[in-house]
Amino acid sequence: MKWTGIAAASGYAMGPAFLLHEAKVEVERRALDAAEIAGEIARFEEEVAQAIRELEGIREQVRKKVGDEEAEIFSAHILVLQDPEYIGAVKDKIKNELLNAEAALQDVTDSFVMLFESMDNEYMRERATDIRDVSGRVMQRLAGIEGQSLADFAEPVVLLAHDLTPSDTAQLDREKVAGFATNIGGRTSHSAIMARSMEIPAVVGLKEITSVIQQGDYIIVDGNEGVVYQNPDEATTSLYRDKQAKYEAYLAELKKLKDEPSITADGHHVEVVANIGNLHDAIGAKKNGAEGVGLYRTEFLYMGRIGLPSEEEQYEAYKAVAETFGARPVVIRTLDIGGDKELPYLDVPEEMNPFLGYRAIRLCLDQPGIFKTQLRAILRASVHGNVKLMYPMIATLTELRQANQLLTEVKQELDASGIPYNPKMEVGMMVEVPAAAMIADQLAKEVDFFSIGTNDLVQYTLAADRMNERVSYLAQPFHPAVLRLIRMVIRAAHSQGKWAGMCGEMAGNLTAIPLLLGLGLDEFSMSTSSVLPARALIHKLNRTALQSLAEQALELGTAEEIMAFVKRNVPEIAEIRG
Amino acid sequence: MKWTGIAAASGYAMGPAFLLHEAKVEVERRALDAAEIAGEIARFEEEVAQAIRELEGIREQVRKKVGDEEAEIFSAHILVLQDPEYIGAVKDKIKNELLNAEAALQDVTDSFVMLFESMDNEYMRERATDIRDVSGRVMQRLAGIEGQSLADFAEPVVLLAHDLTPSDTAQLDREKVAGFATNIGGRTSHSAIMARSMEIPAVVGLKEITSVIQQGDYIIVDGNEGVVYQNPDEATTSLYRDKQAKYEAYLAELKKLKDEPSITADGHHVEVVANIGNLHDAIGAKKNGAEGVGLYRTEFLYMGRIGLPSEEEQYEAYKAVAETFGARPVVIRTLDIGGDKELPYLDVPEEMNPFLGYRAIRLCLDQPGIFKTQLRAILRASVHGNVKLMYPMIATLTELRQANQLLTEVKQELDASGIPYNPKMEVGMMVEVPAAAMIADQLAKEVDFFSIGTNDLVQYTLAADRMNERVSYLAQPFHPAVLRLIRMVIRAAHSQGKWAGMCGEMAGNLTAIPLLLGLGLDEFSMSTSSVLPARALIHKLNRTALQSLAEQALELGTAEEIMAFVKRNVPEIAEIRG
Repeated sequence: MKWTGIAAASGYAMGPAFLLHEAKVEVERRALDAAEIAGEIARFEEEVAQAIRELEGIREQVRKKVGDEEAEIFSAHILVLQDPEYIGAVKDKIKNELLNAEAALQDVTDSFVMLFESMDNEYMRERATDIRDVSGRVMQRLAGIEGQSLADFAEPVVLLAHDLTPSDTAQLDREKVAGFATNIGGRTSHSAIMARSMEIPAVVGLKEITSVIQQGDYIIVDGNEGVVYQNPDEATTSLYRDKQAKYEAYLAELKKLKDEPSITADGHHVEVVANIGNLHDAIGAKKNGAEGVGLYRTEFLYMGRIGLPSEEEQYEAYKAVAETFGARPVVIRTLDIGGDKELPYLDVPEEMNPFLGYRAIRLCLDQPGIFKTQLRAILRASVHGNVKLMYPMIATLTELRQANQLLTEVKQELDASGIPYNPKMEVGMMVEVPAAAMIADQLAKEVDFFSIGTNDLVQYTLAADRMNERVSYLAQPFHPAVLRLIRMVIRAAHSQGKWAGMCGEMAGNLTAIPLLLGLGLDEFSMSTSSVLPARALIHKLNRTALQSLAEQALELGTAEEIMAFVKRNVPEIAEIRG
Repeated sequence: MKWTGIAAASGYAMGPAFLLHEAKVEVERRALDAAEIAGEIARFEEEVAQAIRELEGIREQVRKKVGDEEAEIFSAHILVLQDPEYIGAVKDKIKNELLNAEAALQDVTDSFVMLFESMDNEYMRERATDIRDVSGRVMQRLAGIEGQSLADFAEPVVLLAHDLTPSDTAQLDREKVAGFATNIGGRTSHSAIMARSMEIPAVVGLKEITSVIQQGDYIIVDGNEGVVYQNPDEATTSLYRDKQAKYEAYLAELKKLKDEPSITADGHHVEVVANIGNLHDAIGAKKNGAEGVGLYRTEFLYMGRIGLPSEEEQYEAYKAVAETFGARPVVIRTLDIGGDKELPYLDVPEEMNPFLGYRAIRLCLDQPGIFKTQLRAILRASVHGNVKLMYPMIATLTELRQANQLLTEVKQELDASGIPYNPKMEVGMMVEVPAAAMIADQLAKEVDFFSIGTNDLVQYTLAADRMNERVSYLAQPFHPAVLRLIRMVIRAAHSQGKWAGMCGEMAGNLTAIPLLLGLGLDEFSMSTSSVLPARALIHKLNRTALQSLAEQALELGTAEEIMAFVKRNVPEIAEIRG
């Protein structure tokens, strides 16, 4: 039987199925006597402390077996358990509502999880999984339940589970677990990210697979295509053995490109850079061959806290990332937050259509105090590296001018105080609103660069929420309308001698790269794991030949036709897919 | 003092202020004994019957004083009180929850009002006001409170109120009430619609005006600009006397255009047609000079009911409108409904961003049974007039092809059953998704016409919910991006020998009309009240001269610059504004 899910980590794995059953904790709810409060709080604190020790052990283990960056996931988990807001809320609940620790922990966790899950950013929504993971650990301890240890298996197996937490994943022994497959999860879930770091082939989002596959069934996981086979025939197995060998040879080749520039076969240089959210990402990106940062999402500095981050805090964060990359560019995007992300300290009302609402530059221009603090921090960081600044969600020339006016004011304030900044710092904008693409010729005169945000650009151009499954068929980056808008933006930038980049998911898509090269895109910003495959493909392509290919593609009627046309005419894409 | 609100009905009024204070009903909530139920239901039924008689009286009065169409508003009110669902729900509540009639009425009314207010369509949301109006009448009767009668005043006054219900408005004596001004309300609230029909100058949405203006203050209402003056100086008063005289002369001129074609000064003919929602609107549109219907919104047939409308019901409705206009075009838009409109019989889940969700053609293609029933009804109606069919929300060529495929199937079914339809009925699509505008060249090959829906096109192009006040500054139909998209659509249509119309609010905007004429728009569909002013302006304009004006305008950077440019270069606009 063949199952199709979401490809989470590439590569091929085969072996007997090991079905992991979760230890379910039934949460007891009990009213306390007043006399029990102190004891209950002490019990909770003790188990939290034990959980932290456990996590420190896992972190050490991961640091040795996987790497520093992956170990940092557990530092983040430890921070959750040390967060006075989170832990304090549980203790308050025990005390004020006379509730037992398990129930208090569950209630507080649910509200934190809901907060994160309500955010539109997939990365942030996955943080909900972290909180669940951490709270589950404490909950098991409180309930005295022994978790199933994933550290050891007798032979290399394919692990099947409803879901895997990041700590489950981190503890997997690469020698014993050939690959895994889960019922739920998406490409950016933390376990998917871990799987990619640990290079364990994985497919997620397989719905009901654990209820059909039996312990010991022979399983093939195709992490490139997102396919899982249950007891395949000999021909399939042999085909996959062959694929696996070729893929491993290809991976070895890929690693050689880490420090190479991104130059096409006909000698045209583009930049392949990374999208990051924090210093941890930045370090990983650099290690994996990114030539800089094309999108530094600063939202994370503002989230999961009770007040705005100070200028100093922001400055330190931006500076650390800038220094990591030295002379290489780091494009910092100003705050992109709005009605779909509940920041308790920002009074943003609930909106009927938050994606079309009060967010990003709209909020920043309306609350210039918040915005100017960030601009100051970015300007101050600009002397520590090659920092560029970028505004999100610009829809009109007036907004751009207002933002630039505030930037000028901040520069004057810094001048007056004798605080250094790079006066030549480049200032650009995201093109993610169709209106901006349509007037890119006007906007190009007043910015240093564009960065096309395809995730939002696609959703607005097709008027389809990319989080809404019922209209997911309209999430079409290859729609000719989107490609034509991209062409307009690149042409407009070049006609003013400016550069044009892209920081949406499309930039790392191997089928998109030939089109984007043909249209003249200068900078490709993507998730770290896409950097080397993208570079490998770019090395094989001839940019001049792609110009007419792109023009022809843009005359086709549908996204499907365009994708098929590119794949047919650019055989190099299939070479990269291994 | 000068107040600025929303211009609801044009014209000028002056006179002493008459402040209307509402009779507030404090709703008593009381648990009934089982023995009281029958009596309470009888009391409720009696007051409903009395209220119906009252409304019949008002309807008769309005029919004589205002007109048949306006009287129909009260037929609608009477229907609310005869609706077994609404009235039955109250009686059930009295019986099942042992609740007194006032409380039961309030609860049921609240839930109906909430239902209607949750809809994204402003027209439907205003229906909530009707229900409130009708229930208020019954509530006052139940509570034994005498409503203040608005029928008579001693001298012509300017009426000031927090809000006016349609029945308040309908009972105004045009001889005694020179104009009115209210704290709340919008341009499409029923009282605003009534005011336009009765030609009573009105400004609404003035926020706190009733708490400042005193009984007897001298008031000027400028219903053209949406301005109200409190105790103006003599110069202002004299200016307004002059304006009023000119405006009345202008209105008389306007009426002469009712049966004229819409031809520019240089002999170019365009169509000025109306947006309608039902037969009532159609009759009004024809009486007021519309040359046909450019947008027949069929949603209203589907709303406020417990199941889908039958093919027969729809056929009768479409046929009646088609017959009203005879040889003149009636463009019927297929169902445009989605997650923001709760139809209990359609299982549409709540969505985070309903404007970017499962709606209109997306829903119809997913539920072809519903869609094909409507297509059959429209095809059958096509033999009774000049019917054209139009799909909403098309974003891809594939969707258009799927819709046309279903239409072909329905035609074959009708052929097989020998049911007549017009095989040459034109089939077009709305262009309201930016993607459609961007690939209009491709789409134009497979439709007979385009109709540009600017309300949605603007909101998607600028990524700004037009219902969200916090981003209302981005509701910019004059944004150069929007105008450039419009140009693309018109050019694409013409290059395939097809026609291009517009059915968004922009089509009736006097500043937009010169631009749209210059860009080559063939059909202008608007609210009925805009038809004659639009025609008057078109008569004065030279289309050839406007072509270069439009091209120049589209090179400007902002909506503000474009509007100022058009107003400066087209003095005829100011002549129309009187």
